[in-house]
Amino acid sequence: MQQRPYNFSAGPAAIPEEVLREAAAEMLDWHGSGMSVMEMSHRGKEFISICERAEADLRELLAVPADYRILFMQGGGLGENAIVPLNLSRGGTVDFVVTGSWSQKSFKEAARYCSTHLAAGNAAGQHTTLPDPAGWQLSAKASYLHICSNETIHGVEFQALPDLQALGSDTPLVIDCSSHVASRPIDWSRVALAFAGAQKNLGPAGLTLVIVREDLLGHALPICPSAFDYKTVADHGSMFNTPPTYAIYIAGLTFQWLRRQREGELAGVAAMEQRNRAKAELLYGFIDGSQFYENKVAPDCRSRMNVPFFLRDESRNEAFLAGARARGLLQLKGHKSVGGMRASIYNAMPLAGVQALVAYMREFEQSHA
Amino acid sequence: MQQRPYNFSAGPAAIPEEVLREAAAEMLDWHGSGMSVMEMSHRGKEFISICERAEADLRELLAVPADYRILFMQGGGLGENAIVPLNLSRGGTVDFVVTGSWSQKSFKEAARYCSTHLAAGNAAGQHTTLPDPAGWQLSAKASYLHICSNETIHGVEFQALPDLQALGSDTPLVIDCSSHVASRPIDWSRVALAFAGAQKNLGPAGLTLVIVREDLLGHALPICPSAFDYKTVADHGSMFNTPPTYAIYIAGLTFQWLRRQREGELAGVAAMEQRNRAKAELLYGFIDGSQFYENKVAPDCRSRMNVPFFLRDESRNEAFLAGARARGLLQLKGHKSVGGMRASIYNAMPLAGVQALVAYMREFEQSHA
Repeated sequence: MQQRPYNFSAGPAAIPEEVLREAAAEMLDWHGSGMSVMEMSHRGKEFISICERAEADLRELLAVPADYRILFMQGGGLGENAIVPLNLSRGGTVDFVVTGSWSQKSFKEAARYCSTHLAAGNAAGQHTTLPDPAGWQLSAKASYLHICSNETIHGVEFQALPDLQALGSDTPLVIDCSSHVASRPIDWSRVALAFAGAQKNLGPAGLTLVIVREDLLGHALPICPSAFDYKTVADHGSMFNTPPTYAIYIAGLTFQWLRRQREGELAGVAAMEQRNRAKAELLYGFIDGSQFYENKVAPDCRSRMNVPFFLRDESRNEAFLAGARARGLLQLKGHKSVGGMRASIYNAMPLAGVQALVAYMREFEQSHA
Repeated sequence: MQQRPYNFSAGPAAIPEEVLREAAAEMLDWHGSGMSVMEMSHRGKEFISICERAEADLRELLAVPADYRILFMQGGGLGENAIVPLNLSRGGTVDFVVTGSWSQKSFKEAARYCSTHLAAGNAAGQHTTLPDPAGWQLSAKASYLHICSNETIHGVEFQALPDLQALGSDTPLVIDCSSHVASRPIDWSRVALAFAGAQKNLGPAGLTLVIVREDLLGHALPICPSAFDYKTVADHGSMFNTPPTYAIYIAGLTFQWLRRQREGELAGVAAMEQRNRAKAELLYGFIDGSQFYENKVAPDCRSRMNVPFFLRDESRNEAFLAGARARGLLQLKGHKSVGGMRASIYNAMPLAGVQALVAYMREFEQSHA
């Protein structure tokens, strides 16, 4: 079996090779049904079994409490920027903590539907730090507070989710966790709603995951499209409209893969967290020890998933990328708004991939320093 | 190569076997890129080439004029029931012709965003006929008129699209053509916007096709989510948010398959239309000649794609379905709201599949009459 390249794309991103092989093998005939999963009615027993298993596996992986509903939706994170306030704002005030491009977009979009209040931000530090929750300016009666718990572009991650109750607030916390969901556990005692586009850590683009506490259902604005009303979606088991069936199937295979992962005594998401920590420490450690490369994010809020870094001599960027491609290290170019490089090292990236990247970076430095 | 079963699902529905084989073969490595299409950044040159080719092939297949934009979106037909009035109603009046379940849903959903006017309907005939456009009660100044040009559940199809200009109206015509798009040409001189969920004739669920005349862009209501604003989507080449990349790829392979189809001198959609006509004539002809089976739709508006039929003795339904499954004739059960049987015979269903169905129906009749 030939070694596949290592794909550092920020999303759509690498899928575990085992998942791709399984999908290819059963493309024409899923489990003797005579059908591809793509060809199944979403209301037939075959697809319903696929969808129910995916949901159950995800519930176990993320330890989702019984009073939270898991919804499989469409529209991605940018869609949710409207869908969340349509469902949860009740036309009141919503607090935002803006820590990078993604939360900035959420903040802007929500203004179509409610009063928005900037509770805190990190723009002064060019999105390289995270504001201490103790200093957030919370509204007295916000419908919810929104954070992006991992900023894909700027590479900042909340290492602990804010505990709003400890701050004396009963405001529900909404997290956009698109780019680090399933890379670490979620503390549901602090979270009312979590959403995530699937295309980073869960599966293909076109599937959006929403996990929402039941008491928040049923309060959508009258202008909320039925297909995006969480209560309607929940009442129909994510089948009010035809769901993105094949994407759910691939996500389900990914959940099965996640459940099989082991690191010592650890399994599933806990195992992934340990592996992700090791990958991130290796890469950041190398960058910090180098005079040739640089990461500008404060160490205590560096993302384990998205590692933006810069060559101090940016005239070497093209040579760096060309050499990487030649080594089978793909999609390392940084986001256009930030420049430089970015290595996204999601769950599907093995430690060996990060080791290969570091080995290449070291060699490139030695031959160009 | 073993014969696959024939899949009569109404959607998600059969995909051409050639497409599935191609997708399986390149699941782990698309054209030497080292990546599955699922793993590609939507902004990378590989996926952009896939998306551009898909759009160009579709434009050729459907003879889409240059002043119409092709959008790849998410949310399905039910999503579009809100997204169309959010974009096109301008808060005014919208006319609807309600001819079955799907147009009824569109009519109801639009009332969230505009005044809705029932210009005509066929409920009196239990959705088995189509009202003559000459008798439609058009509003003086409607923002648009909506029809469902093929009702998947009731099996009624407009054999010609209404010519509103000939009726003295300059109201833009919107067609929900989800379940017969690409089965026959579209007369764009009569259509301002066409939308379709992909999961019947184009590819996997989770992709929504919108083809819209350019002059209709840029008039969305302020409450329209950015991700569903046609102008925003058009301005970003369907990449304002991450598109459903793998579904676009499968649709693209399906478009290539469509372009390869030939019937005598005919190619592409024209060839498909001839084949679809032959398939429908075979099945309806058999049903009409039988005392055992029945189709209740008026002959001049019977759908070539969705053929609902009933056993006159409905106590035999389960035996019929079990025998069909045993013959490799899958997903023939009718929609729960109508009952009986339904054979969806989309582009991917070969004539041989309909011949096999008719042979089975004849045999079942002979052994049970």
